[in-house]
Amino acid sequence: RIDGDRLWDSLMEMAKIGPGIAGGNNRQTLTDEDAEGRALFRSWCEAAGMTMGVDAMGTMFATRAGEDPDALPVYVGSHLDTQPTGGKYDGVLGVLGALEAVRTMNDLGIKTKHPIVVTNWANEEGARFAPAMLASGVFAGVLDLDYAYGRKDLEGKTYGDELKRIGWQGEEEVGARKMHAYYELHIEQGPILEAEGRDIGVVTHCQGLWWLEFTLTGKAAHTGSTPMDMRVNAGLAMGRIFEMLQEVAMAAQPGAVGGVGQVTFSPNSRNVLPGSVVFTVDIRSPDQAKLDGMRAEIETRAAEICAELGVGCAVEPVGHFDPVTFAPELVENVRNAAERLGYSHMNIISGAGHDACWAAKVAPATMVMCPCVDGISHNEAEEISQDWAAAGTDVLFHAVLETAEI
Amino acid sequence: RIDGDRLWDSLMEMAKIGPGIAGGNNRQTLTDEDAEGRALFRSWCEAAGMTMGVDAMGTMFATRAGEDPDALPVYVGSHLDTQPTGGKYDGVLGVLGALEAVRTMNDLGIKTKHPIVVTNWANEEGARFAPAMLASGVFAGVLDLDYAYGRKDLEGKTYGDELKRIGWQGEEEVGARKMHAYYELHIEQGPILEAEGRDIGVVTHCQGLWWLEFTLTGKAAHTGSTPMDMRVNAGLAMGRIFEMLQEVAMAAQPGAVGGVGQVTFSPNSRNVLPGSVVFTVDIRSPDQAKLDGMRAEIETRAAEICAELGVGCAVEPVGHFDPVTFAPELVENVRNAAERLGYSHMNIISGAGHDACWAAKVAPATMVMCPCVDGISHNEAEEISQDWAAAGTDVLFHAVLETAEI
Ligand SMILES: NC(=O)NCCC(=O)O
Ligand SMILES: NC(=O)NCCC(=O)O
Repeated sequence: RIDGDRLWDSLMEMAKIGPGIAGGNNRQTLTDEDAEGRALFRSWCEAAGMTMGVDAMGTMFATRAGEDPDALPVYVGSHLDTQPTGGKYDGVLGVLGALEAVRTMNDLGIKTKHPIVVTNWANEEGARFAPAMLASGVFAGVLDLDYAYGRKDLEGKTYGDELKRIGWQGEEEVGARKMHAYYELHIEQGPILEAEGRDIGVVTHCQGLWWLEFTLTGKAAHTGSTPMDMRVNAGLAMGRIFEMLQEVAMAAQPGAVGGVGQVTFSPNSRNVLPGSVVFTVDIRSPDQAKLDGMRAEIETRAAEICAELGVGCAVEPVGHFDPVTFAPELVENVRNAAERLGYSHMNIISGAGHDACWAAKVAPATMVMCPCVDGISHNEAEEISQDWAAAGTDVLFHAVLETAEI
Repeated sequence: RIDGDRLWDSLMEMAKIGPGIAGGNNRQTLTDEDAEGRALFRSWCEAAGMTMGVDAMGTMFATRAGEDPDALPVYVGSHLDTQPTGGKYDGVLGVLGALEAVRTMNDLGIKTKHPIVVTNWANEEGARFAPAMLASGVFAGVLDLDYAYGRKDLEGKTYGDELKRIGWQGEEEVGARKMHAYYELHIEQGPILEAEGRDIGVVTHCQGLWWLEFTLTGKAAHTGSTPMDMRVNAGLAMGRIFEMLQEVAMAAQPGAVGGVGQVTFSPNSRNVLPGSVVFTVDIRSPDQAKLDGMRAEIETRAAEICAELGVGCAVEPVGHFDPVTFAPELVENVRNAAERLGYSHMNIISGAGHDACWAAKVAPATMVMCPCVDGISHNEAEEISQDWAAAGTDVLFHAVLETAEI
């Protein structure tokens, strides 16, 4: 068994970096706080006898040597970056759980045939730089390095410039590493495991996603002196698209979601009808046909809504992954580990995207999930119990040992 | 007649300060650019032989002495502050038109019984610090000085602090001055005069306004892993309120408008349902009962919309003025001046609020309007012709002379 207290102490130590305003964290990608979190993680890895490599996207790879010089490593990790108002566990548990697994191997003098690489993927959240899972996407060859470097935050700063600024642009070519397998522990970020009273989610699939960035072009005009019939009201068009999106998502139940998290009104002045409105639609489903069908319907109906109001409508996909089926033999390892350790478990589909989804493109991959209180995540109020964290990390530890071969 | 070329040159000179990004201006209240514009205006007033007074709200009063030491001054002015993406004429024409009238009096050696005070009201736009017409509101005794000083911009900076920072907090008690009359020249900011082919709008009324700031409280949650039936979706509630607002405004036609110019999503991240959404509804009508009826209906129906979605709904009025009827004798002066000078004219109701609306509380007041291209205002593309500017200023000059008594 892993050391649940040590794991918890490390989680709380990391949570001191980039504190939020309501008990959570704001340690967004490539901020000074991200750099500080990375430095702490590196110091822990070195103390655990691992050697650190960093690739050109800023992803950190801490290697615990294996016995067989020819054996490919087993990668285990997640991410240390957070949402602007994020929790203390989303991503962090997966990285520090992997570190705890290595610390436990050290304590018990366990040697593995395959090396173990504890991984901190850069920019998983995609909050500052869309899309999410950017570094693992480049690693898997799905996204281009230049594309990634050019991604901009809301202030117009690029990923490439900010990565250099914080001093974490590594030498390693992105994706040059070969993986024997990839495991990721993560909190569920949804309400199912807690509602079902299970300690462990055995993650069989991950739902696919489209992020569609809408740019609606209206006519900036005075709210007082512009008659109703002379308005080109991009804000009204947005309101109608929100309602339509809800209809489309509800019609696709069960097994689909749709929502909007980001809106920018310009010029954003109380007495000016917006000249432009930008917002991002997030739709997901584990069913590829359903996902693509939702996208098509949303784009068609949004164009109709805008046309009726004379509003310009442009749609750019700014994030996408297909639904993923995880490697059956690794999924089986997770289930067996939970069974053997006596933790209650159930199969689950990941509602959120994870670096494991991109890793699955280049290696057998899967995930372990643990519950979170009330299903709340991407919220500073995100909470888990120390027991849940320990159970998830125990299962991760055992499943990894199975694949890394003692 | 005034000197149309000199007027135009001054307009273009002022427009160089705080240039926008598309040919207009960004010279928002109490910014460094506002300070620069004020200094230029002061230098022009001094060159025209006027003496400058500044009150504790930062409003500038440039006095041209009159013949009768006991006669109250005729105030003539508007504002030099702009929207974030504002035009070159909204407000500026009224201040520099008043200055041009004084310059013309100087050229022609005209003496008036009443002093003339060219006025630059502070924070007319209300873009940076709501509500609009803040300084004239305090002057008229409708708003409190402490309330005004405490108004905050989106970054949390207060009016009082920013006024001190730019060095334009004057000594004069706000509202201590007594007015014989108040005139204001302004572009229409709407499409009517141009559509009707008239040079001059004789402004008989101004419609009333409510600015209602809605704060909707949802539950910040992951867009991917939060099932549709577990969402508390404040963004969706906002979308429905936009549609409802449109219905209410359309049902109140003719003689009413309603729209939304400002929206803030929090935390504003693509994969987080908003924990809170703040936006401002702007409704107007020249009919007091209709205006108040719209407000009541909007608040009631918004509460219902939010209740259905479990979303919290708080509404705070952040701006208000009643419909205004301008002083008939001054309105008559404007009409007579237009007639005498041979400009085509028509009666018009101001769709926008103006400092004249507050001045009307403490003195006989009215306005002169000139057309603007396509009715576009609060937009960098705002445009007027040099002839329109000259005609409006001519009418202003003559009406003011009538009241100030040669
Ligand atoms: N786990 C997680 O929140 N990943 C970010 C990408 C997503 O929105 O699913
Ligand atoms: N004229 C003008 O735009 N004033 C600002 C107040 C309003 O929105 O009416």
